[in-house]
Amino acid sequence: MSLKKAILEKGLEALFSQATIGIEKEGQRIDLQGNISQTRHPKAFGSRTFHPYIQTDFAESQLELITPVCESSAEALRFLGAVHEVTLQQLPESELLWPFSVPALLPSEDTILEAQMADEDRHYREYLTEKYGKYKQMVSGIHYNFGLTTEFLKKLAEEGESLVDLRNRVYMKLARQFLRYQWLLVYLLGASPFAPDAYFRNGEVLSKPVRSLRASRFGYANAPEISVSFDSLDAYISDLRQLVDTGQLIAEKEFYESVRFRGAKTVRDFPTKGIQYLEFRLFDLNPFAPYGITAEDARFIHLFLMGLLWMEETPDYRVGFSLKEETALAHPLDSALDLAEAEQIFKILSEMAELLDLPDSDRELLATKCSQLRQPEKTVGGQLWQTCQDQESLLAVGLNLAKTYKSKVMKRPFGLQAYAQMELSTQAFLADAIQYGFQLEILDERDQFVKLTFGKHIEYVKNGNMTSQDSYISPLIMENKVVTKKILTQAGFAVPASIQVTSRFEAERSFGLVANRPIVIKPKSTNYGLGISIFEQGVNDKADYLEAIELALKEDSEVMIEDFLAGTEYRFFVLDGETKAVLLRVPANVTGDGVSTVSQLVAAKNDNLLRGDGKSTPLKQIELGALERLQLKAQSYTVDSVIPSGKMVYLRANSNISTGGDSIDMTDAVHPSYKDIAVAIASAIGAKVCGVDLIIPDISLPVDSNSQSYGIIEANFNPMMMMHIFPAVGQSHRLTTDVLKMLYPEYPWDKN
Amino acid sequence: MSLKKAILEKGLEALFSQATIGIEKEGQRIDLQGNISQTRHPKAFGSRTFHPYIQTDFAESQLELITPVCESSAEALRFLGAVHEVTLQQLPESELLWPFSVPALLPSEDTILEAQMADEDRHYREYLTEKYGKYKQMVSGIHYNFGLTTEFLKKLAEEGESLVDLRNRVYMKLARQFLRYQWLLVYLLGASPFAPDAYFRNGEVLSKPVRSLRASRFGYANAPEISVSFDSLDAYISDLRQLVDTGQLIAEKEFYESVRFRGAKTVRDFPTKGIQYLEFRLFDLNPFAPYGITAEDARFIHLFLMGLLWMEETPDYRVGFSLKEETALAHPLDSALDLAEAEQIFKILSEMAELLDLPDSDRELLATKCSQLRQPEKTVGGQLWQTCQDQESLLAVGLNLAKTYKSKVMKRPFGLQAYAQMELSTQAFLADAIQYGFQLEILDERDQFVKLTFGKHIEYVKNGNMTSQDSYISPLIMENKVVTKKILTQAGFAVPASIQVTSRFEAERSFGLVANRPIVIKPKSTNYGLGISIFEQGVNDKADYLEAIELALKEDSEVMIEDFLAGTEYRFFVLDGETKAVLLRVPANVTGDGVSTVSQLVAAKNDNLLRGDGKSTPLKQIELGALERLQLKAQSYTVDSVIPSGKMVYLRANSNISTGGDSIDMTDAVHPSYKDIAVAIASAIGAKVCGVDLIIPDISLPVDSNSQSYGIIEANFNPMMMMHIFPAVGQSHRLTTDVLKMLYPEYPWDKN
Repeated sequence: MSLKKAILEKGLEALFSQATIGIEKEGQRIDLQGNISQTRHPKAFGSRTFHPYIQTDFAESQLELITPVCESSAEALRFLGAVHEVTLQQLPESELLWPFSVPALLPSEDTILEAQMADEDRHYREYLTEKYGKYKQMVSGIHYNFGLTTEFLKKLAEEGESLVDLRNRVYMKLARQFLRYQWLLVYLLGASPFAPDAYFRNGEVLSKPVRSLRASRFGYANAPEISVSFDSLDAYISDLRQLVDTGQLIAEKEFYESVRFRGAKTVRDFPTKGIQYLEFRLFDLNPFAPYGITAEDARFIHLFLMGLLWMEETPDYRVGFSLKEETALAHPLDSALDLAEAEQIFKILSEMAELLDLPDSDRELLATKCSQLRQPEKTVGGQLWQTCQDQESLLAVGLNLAKTYKSKVMKRPFGLQAYAQMELSTQAFLADAIQYGFQLEILDERDQFVKLTFGKHIEYVKNGNMTSQDSYISPLIMENKVVTKKILTQAGFAVPASIQVTSRFEAERSFGLVANRPIVIKPKSTNYGLGISIFEQGVNDKADYLEAIELALKEDSEVMIEDFLAGTEYRFFVLDGETKAVLLRVPANVTGDGVSTVSQLVAAKNDNLLRGDGKSTPLKQIELGALERLQLKAQSYTVDSVIPSGKMVYLRANSNISTGGDSIDMTDAVHPSYKDIAVAIASAIGAKVCGVDLIIPDISLPVDSNSQSYGIIEANFNPMMMMHIFPAVGQSHRLTTDVLKMLYPEYPWDKN
Repeated sequence: MSLKKAILEKGLEALFSQATIGIEKEGQRIDLQGNISQTRHPKAFGSRTFHPYIQTDFAESQLELITPVCESSAEALRFLGAVHEVTLQQLPESELLWPFSVPALLPSEDTILEAQMADEDRHYREYLTEKYGKYKQMVSGIHYNFGLTTEFLKKLAEEGESLVDLRNRVYMKLARQFLRYQWLLVYLLGASPFAPDAYFRNGEVLSKPVRSLRASRFGYANAPEISVSFDSLDAYISDLRQLVDTGQLIAEKEFYESVRFRGAKTVRDFPTKGIQYLEFRLFDLNPFAPYGITAEDARFIHLFLMGLLWMEETPDYRVGFSLKEETALAHPLDSALDLAEAEQIFKILSEMAELLDLPDSDRELLATKCSQLRQPEKTVGGQLWQTCQDQESLLAVGLNLAKTYKSKVMKRPFGLQAYAQMELSTQAFLADAIQYGFQLEILDERDQFVKLTFGKHIEYVKNGNMTSQDSYISPLIMENKVVTKKILTQAGFAVPASIQVTSRFEAERSFGLVANRPIVIKPKSTNYGLGISIFEQGVNDKADYLEAIELALKEDSEVMIEDFLAGTEYRFFVLDGETKAVLLRVPANVTGDGVSTVSQLVAAKNDNLLRGDGKSTPLKQIELGALERLQLKAQSYTVDSVIPSGKMVYLRANSNISTGGDSIDMTDAVHPSYKDIAVAIASAIGAKVCGVDLIIPDISLPVDSNSQSYGIIEANFNPMMMMHIFPAVGQSHRLTTDVLKMLYPEYPWDKN
């Protein structure tokens, strides 16, 4: 039974539409002039011995960026985007990623540093260099890994057919079909028109621009006499093994066909284990796509592969080899080679989209690609040819694109555009995990739930710092202010004395306990400061006191009467027994220059990458609304006032970052004894990760247990991290990395 | 400056009204006939080497129940109540607590077993037996510990006076004042009218009933020649040390005055350390109070002590000794000895209550006590005399009271009346903590937040099983059903396959994935079963499917389409790597007897201590409301139908315990392989305490990984415990103790 018929008869349309997809993308690091980078693989990317996402290919300069197995091409593209963002963020300032498959500038061969990997790999690379030269191996591309779901395959299996046999049958068909029709993908996606003269050796000549030098015999290809049959799996194995056994190939992996069977260490295992997925190695980098391939093209390749399975198999796949070569070597503005065949394929794809009930976006995508058959200038290669027709312009275009792609990422150094829907702190955490090479799975995007794996060690992380390292009870302690106070008081810390009352009557009876003391009266659960009264000079008048009680009772049924502490509030970020950062938050403000108005000063201050909506940016733009104007008025200013040079004007009474406040790093400014106190406080409530808010009158003086040198405001679980990582003023503290270090002490941190 | 003047001038009214109060209450274990129990101290009460609340006094049968230091007499009384409840719950069925100070039946002296304590203590007890005989030591009473707060004392201190000196000054005054006026307390609270003849030795004779034999020289008192001065702390120390040094007393603690200085190992330390609090040892057990003292009397003692401090000190405290003896030996129906003095005291107390702005309840309490000065029949001793005027009636009254007090507690074996406002599971947990001798502090009653201490090991527990043993992340995993499913699926467990959709359109596109499969369609966050549709036979009709989707989408923006599993749902309670209990919940039901109507069967079933409102009881009463009647109607019954013998009739469709359902323990009935699966599930999500809900078609068959022998419904954090501790049917599993064992592996559990 044909695959199409089986799908339709067994109702497997939806299952057939699912797939596992992974993408590998090679690309050269270059300097700002377009020269291949001579530097070593950046240490920031951790170790290549285990890094799942950031590797090197042939050359030390040739990054290979790898996605995990994803459930859709869109997911794979998204992850590829995240890996690119991290890579670009961590590249030295003087480096870019070259966006083309073929370098514009080739250094002399002896200066090309092969990837500095383990010994065995190096030996293999040296052999390849000897055989193919270094230049061909410098060419980069996209590898597209594609598998069908096991659930689909299980249901597809015919009576009596084993899953292994079915796998091999289906994937062999797909491989042959791909070889037969790959020319169409080369036509639509090929984008390597020429190479520097030095590239060619042994008298090779490429006299005119082509669609895909890389996909042609001028690419990194086996010698013409290397031939492996795809007629059957047995024939394939037999041919390939003979080439290896006779030494014509050093290993199976030296066979560079555009499709490769995956899922076993040697092809000899496929008859018993089954082919798990296919790797398609055909694709040139698309320089117009920031990550080398567009989401549309990734989806198109998926649809194309589905179509190859969907249609009846064409008798002789070998025809495809010459069609591919001819297409690869055609001029970028030549139309598709065999229009009739191409349009027939698109007809089948459209029919499939119809019968599988694929979304409209897929149908539109197919229509677009189909229209390019007669409009070569719309293909990637065609568009490229219109922009650059020689090495010089290609260098200029490539450098320009590379700079654009990098600067776009550097405008958001604090996040990952790929995961823009998640909280910034989780974005930063994900960026770290990718950078250092932790295997990553996002379990629930909305809920900021992430899974990390390093070796066999799995950790789950929510909201960036909620982890297995903390105990269940410690955030529950922090959630309850009364319990927190009791525990910290019993542990001997300076907790402002407080009493709780639930009625005016109770409050009246407690007046004697608080009379003449500086106190704060506040609802037990504080909400944006509502219902809070402060008696800094002590409460003397019972009527005033009771009025404040009534105000607080409007907000909560329980009211706290707490000793007021004079001083400034600081946030201590404690992690794993260490105060990692100390922060001061000050209200939204501008500092005058004697010339600019408040409006101008605010505009200038807001012109900062870190300031935005305060959710997708670490800091918030300062607004000039009613509250800010009122605050100005109280200081006898308007938005049009010119502020004297050096004078700071506050635009808000509250110091929240969310209303435009500044975060000021004070980690090195506070006396170390307060850091110890913060650590001890976290320890008393059993917290590994904890934000301790302390009131301190003078941070330059050490803690003095005999006087009120500090007071605890509260301890917070899941404390904010971004304000420490990207403070408005002062040094950054990469707390997300500290969380990773806490979770994975066995990771080779000292090697980064 | 007088204390009163200082309080008023310094505004210390409220601080003076605060105090630390602790109560110790002795009492004899007796058999059901009133004989002193001959059994050993019950093992259920843990070890006396460290038990903070349940100790023995002189005799092995003489329990000493101790409260921690509390912030009010009410709190102390409450804790004393809880300790009593636990004690009575754990006493053997054949034992009671004798409610009088003096036993009604005295065994022959040689059969009285001295408390089996550590060697040193035993030696001391043997010495006392030799000197005083055993009988006097069998007399029980209340010790009332009283301290002023440090904050009050600090503010009270006069210019240049150290806190230590102040402590000694204030407590010396209080001690002398107490000695001077204690006769009044003996009058109001004395309640030991006589003793069995055997009690008296060396020719002692008590010819008439008295107010307090215990407080008189016939009580457990020093010889008349033992005299210690209270004139000054130095004189006190000097006298007492001389008595010890000359061997007239074996140790300082052999000095049995009704007031004792506390807070140092030897009185010689007081001049440098200061007296910390006073212990008043005067009080007879009040047999009419279930715990030996009423809350009112405990409060009255506090007010009386405040009054003694408040008033000017009376010159010669020694006058008090004879007044006390005379009052103790007066007839229970004699009026107060010195009415003028007594009324003067009450006048001062009233004035104090006025000036301190004490609550109305205190003023009423003072008025009541004052009225008893001329109404001896209203005093405790007076009331007692009216009920029993000889040994025989005293035995009868005592036994009757003892049985009443015990049976009242045994009607609520599942909770602690003292903490009735807390959740039942926390009540059970507190009961265990008290029973086994963990130091206990309730940090937040409303929030079920408790602190435990054993040795130096502190643990915090919320809601009975939320502890430091669980990690922060595992409840967060369980809270997110999608994440839980992903993790358990990845770990290889049988999780029903599911997809999520957020729109009708998405659902329509997913129909192919679920068509013909038995499925459940439900909102992502299930609320009381709203919006759930089950297609047990598989969903065939797309329209039906979409209707179910629409229904679910009304409840949540995300809808889960999940494989339906046939079978019965069981709750597995996993703790610390072990399935501790397995439970089946069945809908509210009755089983016919061929005679009774449904109404009668329900009434009979509801007549069970465990059934009540379902909050203060482990099970809920079955109601006969509209839903139950409808359910009956569906089975062609009414509430008046007589149900055939042995036939079970369900009154509800849902199996919730909260609607009258039965909890049936199945721990021994399920095949052990499911218990292992539940443990492995908890382990996969890193949970120490976890309620795993499994659907199992046949619990007698072992888990079979090749077939659907089980399916995971969900994993729950903070799982319910009461339904396992007090199931409707089957064996109880004391999970609260298991939580304690998990938290404190170092506790000598095997010795209980």
